[in-house]
Amino acid sequence: MKTYRLALIGFGNVGQGLAQILRDRGPELGERYGATFQIVAVCDFLQGSLYNPVGLDPAVLLAAVENDGHLRNIEAPQQGWDAEETISGSKADIIVEMSYTNLETGEPATSHVRWALQAGKHVATTNKGPIALHYAELADMARQNKVEIEAEGTVMSGTPAIHLGRDQLAGAGIKRIQGILNGTTNYILTQMEGGASYADALREAQVQGYAEADPTGDVEGIDAAGKVVILANLLMGESLTMADVKRTGITGITLEDVGAARAAGERWKLIGTIERKNGQIQASVQPVRLPLSHPLASVSGATNAITYATDLLGDVTLVGPGAGRIETGYAVVSDLLAIHRAKKQ
Amino acid sequence: MKTYRLALIGFGNVGQGLAQILRDRGPELGERYGATFQIVAVCDFLQGSLYNPVGLDPAVLLAAVENDGHLRNIEAPQQGWDAEETISGSKADIIVEMSYTNLETGEPATSHVRWALQAGKHVATTNKGPIALHYAELADMARQNKVEIEAEGTVMSGTPAIHLGRDQLAGAGIKRIQGILNGTTNYILTQMEGGASYADALREAQVQGYAEADPTGDVEGIDAAGKVVILANLLMGESLTMADVKRTGITGITLEDVGAARAAGERWKLIGTIERKNGQIQASVQPVRLPLSHPLASVSGATNAITYATDLLGDVTLVGPGAGRIETGYAVVSDLLAIHRAKKQ
Repeated sequence: MKTYRLALIGFGNVGQGLAQILRDRGPELGERYGATFQIVAVCDFLQGSLYNPVGLDPAVLLAAVENDGHLRNIEAPQQGWDAEETISGSKADIIVEMSYTNLETGEPATSHVRWALQAGKHVATTNKGPIALHYAELADMARQNKVEIEAEGTVMSGTPAIHLGRDQLAGAGIKRIQGILNGTTNYILTQMEGGASYADALREAQVQGYAEADPTGDVEGIDAAGKVVILANLLMGESLTMADVKRTGITGITLEDVGAARAAGERWKLIGTIERKNGQIQASVQPVRLPLSHPLASVSGATNAITYATDLLGDVTLVGPGAGRIETGYAVVSDLLAIHRAKKQ
Repeated sequence: MKTYRLALIGFGNVGQGLAQILRDRGPELGERYGATFQIVAVCDFLQGSLYNPVGLDPAVLLAAVENDGHLRNIEAPQQGWDAEETISGSKADIIVEMSYTNLETGEPATSHVRWALQAGKHVATTNKGPIALHYAELADMARQNKVEIEAEGTVMSGTPAIHLGRDQLAGAGIKRIQGILNGTTNYILTQMEGGASYADALREAQVQGYAEADPTGDVEGIDAAGKVVILANLLMGESLTMADVKRTGITGITLEDVGAARAAGERWKLIGTIERKNGQIQASVQPVRLPLSHPLASVSGATNAITYATDLLGDVTLVGPGAGRIETGYAVVSDLLAIHRAKKQ
């Protein structure tokens, strides 16, 4: 049994989801995979920071958030460290980066990842920014420091789209990736299939907590474009940037469009595509009318899906959740297990 | 770069598919995954047996089969060994078991696997017999000899259903598995959806090469039941036998049944299910009427699919090919890479 010490940068929804999984399933994971994951540090901008080299009980962390709304009442040898101090000062083997970021600068998450790799620590991140904007640099830095960088949670939350593509399918020759990579827009389109107007469907998505107050990132396809860049760079060895993705959102889709597709036995989906054509890579996010027989056509609601078109296996499709606190927490577990597989013995 | 020496037991369709992949993609696999797979022995009941400790060129093996119909004209230091001599006498690290077997005794494949494990050699097998009938014993033998036993090709050919379930999803708590695990019956049911009678659809499946002259194993659900046993034992820690699977085939499904389902917005599928209920495991293969919104309902033709219902991620579905020479050859590649991951460094 190998023990890995974790420093969690960010303790919002995803961090708490991860803590819950380690609290409830830590022993079972240990038994199944031969690895124990022990939280030694938590650093959250709002909730406070703790470091205890002998370990922090996830149950205690979760109870403090629930009862006090923050972590500052928990006793620990070291309190109040910022992210940089936590990353460089804690004796953690793995930095779990779950703070916040954007798809323009990638900060502050990218700095966190850089500090971690430079300090010779493995990284698991659920933040799209660093991976979509700076993956080549970070992967290189990881190689030089002989550590791993993992990012399962950046695409389809805990549905293991990246590990499936990288560990299982890359050897079969991935020539095209197509996916429903954003749950909010798929939820809206599904509601419109049921007869709701775009405005009503968006409002319902906001009520359900799928869409934010400003839905631009989702409905204009920016979130999906970030995932397209990540998939192209991680799985197809490309060096795309956000600007390389031809992008159209769903705001122009009307009930008439939905009806016309239905009459033709088709369905609108917001599809992210990466494809090699004549030696060139083409990447896009756009609404596409799919025949009902297409494996992505029946993916409804907030569910996500991805189809890998491969040379040796033809099409392989993975369908699963695209968001959620526990689901994204599990993406981190998936990354921790990948680091363990890469490093064992 | 680590080199693994392979002895291939069986050089029919799957063995030739594997040789083709190693011939065409060996260098690329090496670069991507840091492992070289070198064939040193081939033993086939019909085509002859060869052993060359410095390696056998897959291109030469394939050309011999194509030109001569057998391997006996290829020069090699050792010729004519039987399976037992090849397994124990060759300096192979991995025995790739692709001979033949049945779901009653599991022989001769099971003996091949036992000899390999006892000789301290890893095993990758595409034969359902040993895994469905003797997995507990063989897994124990592998542990004692500190080697790996892999069997991706026994379910959904090269679609990585087993590795996805074991390496990525088992930690999320698999509580139910449901799948379309037999391509022949799914092809027949899809033809019947299109208006063909059962008899016509079966005949077309035989013409297309999906169904054998005696289709019993497919249409009575025996093949799918073997896969149900494999999934239960490999992924859910059970010790089921074939007799534990409640089994009904598709021979009783009529065009009237298909029409009645369609009128209700449903579709007949032959579904393998493993489920824990009240602490008890229930396993079955039977025709089920699925609503069209079900992720397995839209899986058509000879394609296979599997849905893992998990505690942490909800439903995760994988769709891909269920048979084929290259596809099953790739299942072996997937197993070789899993052995490499388990053993590297």
